[in-house]
Amino acid sequence: MVRVNHKKLEQFVSGVFQALEVPAPDADIAAEVLVAADLRGVDSHGVVRVNPRSFYAKDLKDGRINPKPDIKVVRDNAASVLVDGDAGLGMVVGHRAMLLAIEKARASGVGFAIVRNSRHFGMSAYYSMMALSRGLIGIAMTNASRQVVPTFGRESRYGTNPISLAAPADKGRPFVLDMATTTAAAGKLEIAARHGNKIPVGWALDENAQNTTDPRTGQKARRLLPLGSTREGGSHKGYGLAIMVEILCGVLSGSVVALNEAKSPERGHFFGAIDIGFFRPVEEFKADMDQMLAELRATPPQDDQEQVYVAGDIEQNTAEDRAENGIPLHPSIMEDLRVLGEEYGVNYDLGS
Amino acid sequence: MVRVNHKKLEQFVSGVFQALEVPAPDADIAAEVLVAADLRGVDSHGVVRVNPRSFYAKDLKDGRINPKPDIKVVRDNAASVLVDGDAGLGMVVGHRAMLLAIEKARASGVGFAIVRNSRHFGMSAYYSMMALSRGLIGIAMTNASRQVVPTFGRESRYGTNPISLAAPADKGRPFVLDMATTTAAAGKLEIAARHGNKIPVGWALDENAQNTTDPRTGQKARRLLPLGSTREGGSHKGYGLAIMVEILCGVLSGSVVALNEAKSPERGHFFGAIDIGFFRPVEEFKADMDQMLAELRATPPQDDQEQVYVAGDIEQNTAEDRAENGIPLHPSIMEDLRVLGEEYGVNYDLGS
Repeated sequence: MVRVNHKKLEQFVSGVFQALEVPAPDADIAAEVLVAADLRGVDSHGVVRVNPRSFYAKDLKDGRINPKPDIKVVRDNAASVLVDGDAGLGMVVGHRAMLLAIEKARASGVGFAIVRNSRHFGMSAYYSMMALSRGLIGIAMTNASRQVVPTFGRESRYGTNPISLAAPADKGRPFVLDMATTTAAAGKLEIAARHGNKIPVGWALDENAQNTTDPRTGQKARRLLPLGSTREGGSHKGYGLAIMVEILCGVLSGSVVALNEAKSPERGHFFGAIDIGFFRPVEEFKADMDQMLAELRATPPQDDQEQVYVAGDIEQNTAEDRAENGIPLHPSIMEDLRVLGEEYGVNYDLGS
Repeated sequence: MVRVNHKKLEQFVSGVFQALEVPAPDADIAAEVLVAADLRGVDSHGVVRVNPRSFYAKDLKDGRINPKPDIKVVRDNAASVLVDGDAGLGMVVGHRAMLLAIEKARASGVGFAIVRNSRHFGMSAYYSMMALSRGLIGIAMTNASRQVVPTFGRESRYGTNPISLAAPADKGRPFVLDMATTTAAAGKLEIAARHGNKIPVGWALDENAQNTTDPRTGQKARRLLPLGSTREGGSHKGYGLAIMVEILCGVLSGSVVALNEAKSPERGHFFGAIDIGFFRPVEEFKADMDQMLAELRATPPQDDQEQVYVAGDIEQNTAEDRAENGIPLHPSIMEDLRVLGEEYGVNYDLGS
């Protein structure tokens, strides 16, 4: 596969957003969020979504995403805000809201931004890591379109509703959790389908609500299983976590999407930041993080495994490699981007 | 099994705590928290723990729990506090801290209490539901003693670290999530062992880090599996959630217990409350909750299931039955309580 320089990729994607009437500073932010996903190996949430058929470009063109939103703070409390995203790109709304949560945390110790009327915001870890790079703990969650079946059920009723938390360490790598509350993220089915692989039992149901090992059948049926897969495996917990996320992102903000048609673009988000120094000397916190994460990584591994990881380790390895050596893009994605560049008159200079 | 009146049971347990030097108001609170677990059917976190061999009574006697703690607010911010539990009973410390979080939420919209130097606090849902009964959203988490194996690992490194969130509805039942971040809570092994049942593959490893279906082997090895059970099943997510809880409860407070010996009694907790009215008219929130939860419950069930539930439904059914008809206690537990009553000179009037 061709490897593409991430800065060039960002410029290209920003150019496409600008051609779709998004102001340059916002387009840059949106492009950075998407390419950050490609850097971390979360390819399903990266530039693959900026193709002529996927939602960002299409929804901007069709008016389902507002290119020039009037993002407003609707309520402002001591440690939190409620933000209305005015149907703007989720990356732009999310970036703005997370900065507000960080600002509140710096003033009050903890800070929250609850967001209504937003759109798909890409990779959750981008926002939790915004706090991280500023020395704070960051939290990000979002509701998502309906494609998950509650425990004991036959039909989808809610989304993959991810949870992300990032916390700094000192000398060692930070902790960065970013997880869909399903056994497998929807993107995992996409990847299996592209490679012609089967998926394990426990990931997805077919249209008759039976387990399927065919990723395309799973994608078509849109009936993913909650983390845990079966009642015995704890799926009521994955299901419960997802509804927790929907309550915090959707019901609290006024943008419940669990019960919307799967195609509704509306999203609600929840962002949090914690300024560690309000609770404990930061150096003590970081030293405990270093020790805990190092000891977790040093857990004796199972015979068939090389080592135990901490959340975010593998993604950070990937990000370092890709920042240095470029992001590998599948030829079909390169072709999509080339077509997009032509359609929107954006200079395509990605090396293939 | 004999069914015991929950009020009588509370009085008896409070009497035992008082005999162990706990002041009457604190003893009443601790007893109420424990019996609330029995009422909800979370028997593993109820009065079974107040037997001559288990930790509450033993630790109070041995000085590992302080019967008269000086519970202190160490830091006080706009929306949060850091509390030092002075090694007091976790139920007493937790109750106090949750009230502080609720107080902060009423003033600021959101409120948090982070707790260090506490002890085992019983059932998490008790605390999140304290917010619920006051019309707020409640959150409770705690770290726990080492008995869970990280994904790919052979040995335990952290605890079952539960997450609870309770949110009110209007006419319908509320949402009450309370979940260990393992596939199965430790108490499930205890129950299987007591009934002579096997446990499913994916719940626990034996002392050679292989799956076991024998609950007693699992209890002895103390190597539970994270929610998801295997990497393919998403166990890195259960593992990640547990470390998230440890960061919020332990690293942020200064009471990290993940790396302590399994027998360390130290605990850190995290409590949160959200005053809905600061974000959205409460009636709108509750109407959305009613609709969402009703539609989840109305999901067509799998052929072999009667219906789809929402987190907390089954526990609330149980609580209503047991409040009315008494709490069924296993003869061996009744006998333990009788012995305890004799030992501490507390009038045993539980009807058998």
